[in-house]
Amino acid sequence: MAMGETPITVIGNLTSDPELRFTPSGAALAKFTVASTPRTFDRESNQYKDGTAMFLRCSAWRQLAEHIADSLGKGSRVIVNGRLRQFDWETDQGENRSMLTLEVDDIGPSLRFATAKTQKRQSNGSTGNGAAQDPWNASAKQQGEEPPF
Amino acid sequence: MAMGETPITVIGNLTSDPELRFTPSGAALAKFTVASTPRTFDRESNQYKDGTAMFLRCSAWRQLAEHIADSLGKGSRVIVNGRLRQFDWETDQGENRSMLTLEVDDIGPSLRFATAKTQKRQSNGSTGNGAAQDPWNASAKQQGEEPPF
Amino acid sequence: MAMGETPITVIGNLTSDPELRFTPSGAALAKFTVASTPRTFDRESNQYKDGTAMFLRCSAWRQLAEHIADSLGKGSRVIVNGRLRQFDWETDQGENRSMLTLEVDDIGPSLRFATAKTQKRQSNGSTGNGAAQDPWNASAKQQGEEPPF
Amino acid sequence: MAMGETPITVIGNLTSDPELRFTPSGAALAKFTVASTPRTFDRESNQYKDGTAMFLRCSAWRQLAEHIADSLGKGSRVIVNGRLRQFDWETDQGENRSMLTLEVDDIGPSLRFATAKTQKRQSNGSTGNGAAQDPWNASAKQQGEEPPF
Repeated sequence: MAMGETPITVIGNLTSDPELRFTPSGAALAKFTVASTPRTFDRESNQYKDGTAMFLRCSAWRQLAEHIADSLGKGSRVIVNGRLRQFDWETDQGENRSMLTLEVDDIGPSLRFATAKTQKRQSNGSTGNGAAQDPWNASAKQQGEEPPF
Repeated sequence: MAMGETPITVIGNLTSDPELRFTPSGAALAKFTVASTPRTFDRESNQYKDGTAMFLRCSAWRQLAEHIADSLGKGSRVIVNGRLRQFDWETDQGENRSMLTLEVDDIGPSLRFATAKTQKRQSNGSTGNGAAQDPWNASAKQQGEEPPF
Repeated sequence: MAMGETPITVIGNLTSDPELRFTPSGAALAKFTVASTPRTFDRESNQYKDGTAMFLRCSAWRQLAEHIADSLGKGSRVIVNGRLRQFDWETDQGENRSMLTLEVDDIGPSLRFATAKTQKRQSNGSTGNGAAQDPWNASAKQQGEEPPF
Repeated sequence: MAMGETPITVIGNLTSDPELRFTPSGAALAKFTVASTPRTFDRESNQYKDGTAMFLRCSAWRQLAEHIADSLGKGSRVIVNGRLRQFDWETDQGENRSMLTLEVDDIGPSLRFATAKTQKRQSNGSTGNGAAQDPWNASAKQQGEEPPF
């Protein structure tokens, strides 16, 4: 639980199926990228045009991660709610890099262009906010040319 | 489309099934209320306690309204994204009343405690943002003791 | 500190000077109302028109409350960041009423139509987030025709 | 004016004085970076600790840009409201890079640790939203090792 975080809601489409992994302690972690494309109204042509897409790398933990892996796939339109975070790492060449990522608190498939049938899952009795305890040490710098994120 | 609106994302549960109506021109309108309950960490008991619930009346239009009626019911946990709006009316006694409401831009069933299967629906070729043209004149003052909203 | 709250940012103008009071224990409390007016682009006239104003009652605590009283007045345009909360009360006639209010975490005078000169104030060493402990019991129902808020 | 953009509010401190430039057509552009540092409550030590800082590059246009340059400096704590955007560019080596940036709609100096005196400035009669027409073509890819942003 933290103060001074930056809440954000992003609406867009998954660029590929979510990847589901498990930490050594058994906690599920889902990673995926959401592409969000604004549309601008062009007064000359009197219609909307796509703007530059924004790609945001997202992480979700535990039950939420498992439900994401069971429910969403490449192209799914979603509403993602969470907190914006900077992720820092070092390349093999020793360069410092950083990117902004989204720590997911909740997510749902958008009903704008689709209907959805939900199924409740057994709760494991946790307090629900996966962000409270981070099973991996997210602030540790890691090595590698590609963002290990 | 408007500037200076107040965007908001609310996470909570539907207090009852959505009501679906149609305007004289045939546009679908879904109305529902979302209850959102914050939880406070109590350091003495070392656990979370429910705070005062917030109830927010929501409106969604057209395709989105129909998909909501087809997908959500009483108790559904949702992520709602839209704009906060004030709705003014006059009671039979001539008192002015107002309430804040949420004009929905997008919504999805939460994956925190459930999984979801989605089904794409045929688009009717509209540009999608139901908020652009309001099929009813929302600013017209109406009469009645109960909020006509 | 709470989970599941609804963060919000509102931009608008103070409808009057902020009221500053002190709790019995000496904590400052500033109350004020922000009016936020969206503007809609009208394609026929090719210009913007004011929409229905939204009025949001705001509370700020401690140092922040004192700085608000020292810095802002009727008409000040501000950016307010905080959490949306429902306030419930009972009228003298025994009717239940409720309104949505904004618990302020931070606020600043807008630089859109003005410049500002700031002056740092001595910190009292608190951790800063006045919302953590509520010096008054905000959930207690109170009596009175007018919202005691 | 655009739909499907991602609104965001960030609270943090300017890492240096804002840079003010003018486009060939005379429009002011202010650029600056805001550092936002979350604080986590550590239950063992019973106090707050700083988390990983997030750095967000911000752009503001026209009158707002000039007011920013006149009002803010290195270290100023601000509330920034705007839209998150991806900026893409190509390095001299032909690598594609991208970063998320904040297109500022409004900003104010925070009153949490300071007071402020504001002074109204003459409006030039524009409709105010500098984001509506972009005096530079922001989507054009540019060359150079450093983000030209």
